[in-house]
Amino acid sequence: MASLSTCPPLTRQSVVEARETIRHHIHETPVVSSEYLNRLASTDRHDAAKNEVESSEAEFMQRAKPVMRLWFKCENMQKVGAFKARGAFHAVERLKQEPDWLENGGLRNHAQAVALAAQQNSMPAHVVMPETSSAVKIKSVETYGAQLTLCPRFDRELVAAQVIERTGARLIPPYDHPDVILGQGTCGLELQHQTERLDAIISPSSGGGLLSGTALSCEGTGIRVYGAEPEFEGADDGRRGFLSGKRITHVESSTIADGLIGKLGQYPWDIIYERRLVDMMYAVSEEEILQAMKLIYERLKLVVEPAAAVSLAVALYNEEFRQMVEKTAGEAGWDIGIILSGGNIGTERMAELFSKLK
Amino acid sequence: MASLSTCPPLTRQSVVEARETIRHHIHETPVVSSEYLNRLASTDRHDAAKNEVESSEAEFMQRAKPVMRLWFKCENMQKVGAFKARGAFHAVERLKQEPDWLENGGLRNHAQAVALAAQQNSMPAHVVMPETSSAVKIKSVETYGAQLTLCPRFDRELVAAQVIERTGARLIPPYDHPDVILGQGTCGLELQHQTERLDAIISPSSGGGLLSGTALSCEGTGIRVYGAEPEFEGADDGRRGFLSGKRITHVESSTIADGLIGKLGQYPWDIIYERRLVDMMYAVSEEEILQAMKLIYERLKLVVEPAAAVSLAVALYNEEFRQMVEKTAGEAGWDIGIILSGGNIGTERMAELFSKLK
Repeated sequence: MASLSTCPPLTRQSVVEARETIRHHIHETPVVSSEYLNRLASTDRHDAAKNEVESSEAEFMQRAKPVMRLWFKCENMQKVGAFKARGAFHAVERLKQEPDWLENGGLRNHAQAVALAAQQNSMPAHVVMPETSSAVKIKSVETYGAQLTLCPRFDRELVAAQVIERTGARLIPPYDHPDVILGQGTCGLELQHQTERLDAIISPSSGGGLLSGTALSCEGTGIRVYGAEPEFEGADDGRRGFLSGKRITHVESSTIADGLIGKLGQYPWDIIYERRLVDMMYAVSEEEILQAMKLIYERLKLVVEPAAAVSLAVALYNEEFRQMVEKTAGEAGWDIGIILSGGNIGTERMAELFSKLK
Repeated sequence: MASLSTCPPLTRQSVVEARETIRHHIHETPVVSSEYLNRLASTDRHDAAKNEVESSEAEFMQRAKPVMRLWFKCENMQKVGAFKARGAFHAVERLKQEPDWLENGGLRNHAQAVALAAQQNSMPAHVVMPETSSAVKIKSVETYGAQLTLCPRFDRELVAAQVIERTGARLIPPYDHPDVILGQGTCGLELQHQTERLDAIISPSSGGGLLSGTALSCEGTGIRVYGAEPEFEGADDGRRGFLSGKRITHVESSTIADGLIGKLGQYPWDIIYERRLVDMMYAVSEEEILQAMKLIYERLKLVVEPAAAVSLAVALYNEEFRQMVEKTAGEAGWDIGIILSGGNIGTERMAELFSKLK
């Protein structure tokens, strides 16, 4: 990475500049909407699922009926199939600005998006990925010509350190670095330019690069930012940390949203929690994630991985979020940006996941 | 349908007016591109598939290497998941302009898109569909509140006539009517507005409503229009008719592109062949269609049905088309619009289809 001492300040203006830096390297991904999903989001969950026999009358009475218009930002259609191209290209462009970067051995490193950025800059790249990674992701990294090292699921940092030791490579961490965060923030900025008005954005959160970047892009605009996580086996480390005021530094979960297992990084935490640029974090169940993913497939005709479906799952199924919107937005309702973060999933896996739904 | 005597002339200007008529009822669907697919389209097929052991040296020498930049028009993201919403809304809007349409019993009729148009206009709708239709399509029609009648695959017209007899409904044919054709043409018009320049558009062709509408939208612009069909079991009736100069009026095929089995209608034929507004028709194999569909899934992250993949299959795999482009476009290459016509397919069916690929 570029030296920390040269990093731009973590502000909205720096996100604007990051967008200038990478605009010719990335896609301006489309923003789409669906009347059906707007109607579903604006219907109380009892009406939406008449056959939920287990729901008592009391629960029914409590269920919120917010008014929501959803705007889906299609980062699944970004290069490498995910928002990560933004941070990777920004990190590489920033590194190229360092006078001595080539003398120091250039850049060799970490992650699918970085593989592409490195390839387009004719740099060798080493990528360390968990051996549980999807076949699609692994194939994609290889297509970009990177050297791949597979590692046990929770040993990424250790194995990456070994590769660096062996090759003299320089590390691009996936989220915990200002340049990466500013790059990811360009997604939220674009979404603001592409919609007439926005009241809020919901972003998935894993290491927090995308969420904290989104929060920076909204600073001073009045747009509220919310994080979304899976709750399964404690993958909602961001929410638990947010509620307790203490960042959680260990997570092991086998949630289907395997892109969201990483623990919240220090830089993201500072932006999200210490600077209070994120209003709240919400968590959803495995079934809610799958249900949202299926709606995205059927109604938006988009291929998204489970991690990308958590934002919609929060909007549709999280009663705490829905009651908050109903109360805050009133009858006028809210225009809500939903970041579909990535689409790296094969058809077989998708069919297998959908078959688990009742 | 509105009386034929009141239909606007079949010209580009009428397509422009049709767009005004329906613009608040339909989505302006996104246009996307992929560097990977541009590179693949611009690589000769020997290089693209080095492991094709059966290819002789002679074949290799003949293989074209055109330069193509592809612009994908996402009609799979249109309402009802297909371009058909355009023709249906236009037909219904035009019918509403008839002074006596309500006295005549209003509108009851035919097709998934019409079901939505009818629902939004509070009209009852009857839909006749082949019993081989996908579960997704059937569910969608029912969601829009239409009365569904399933029929043997090649008896649609007969059964529709029976429903009309029984109910006094009025028919909206799926393609062989000026109002429908003008509505479908709005897709090509939008594509022209959304891209900086276009040299050509490839559209799937079944009954020919979308293809002939696209051709009208390009009349006088210099943009060439090509039709794409499956070749399996004679589903390339359009191409065979085009080459022989005689419209083919009987087709029975079990191609995986089940949306493209219908025979070319008389109105489309007049536009496509008699007026020569389509330059050529091309056909592709079942495997080429599947391969294109898989690339659309993996690289564009879009859900499309097999019928929607034929245009890309022509661009990537049809040597006759590719040689024509190489010869006509030269080194500058062509910007080519690829219409992704629809996305009504379940995940199970898609996984099953992809499993057939080597």
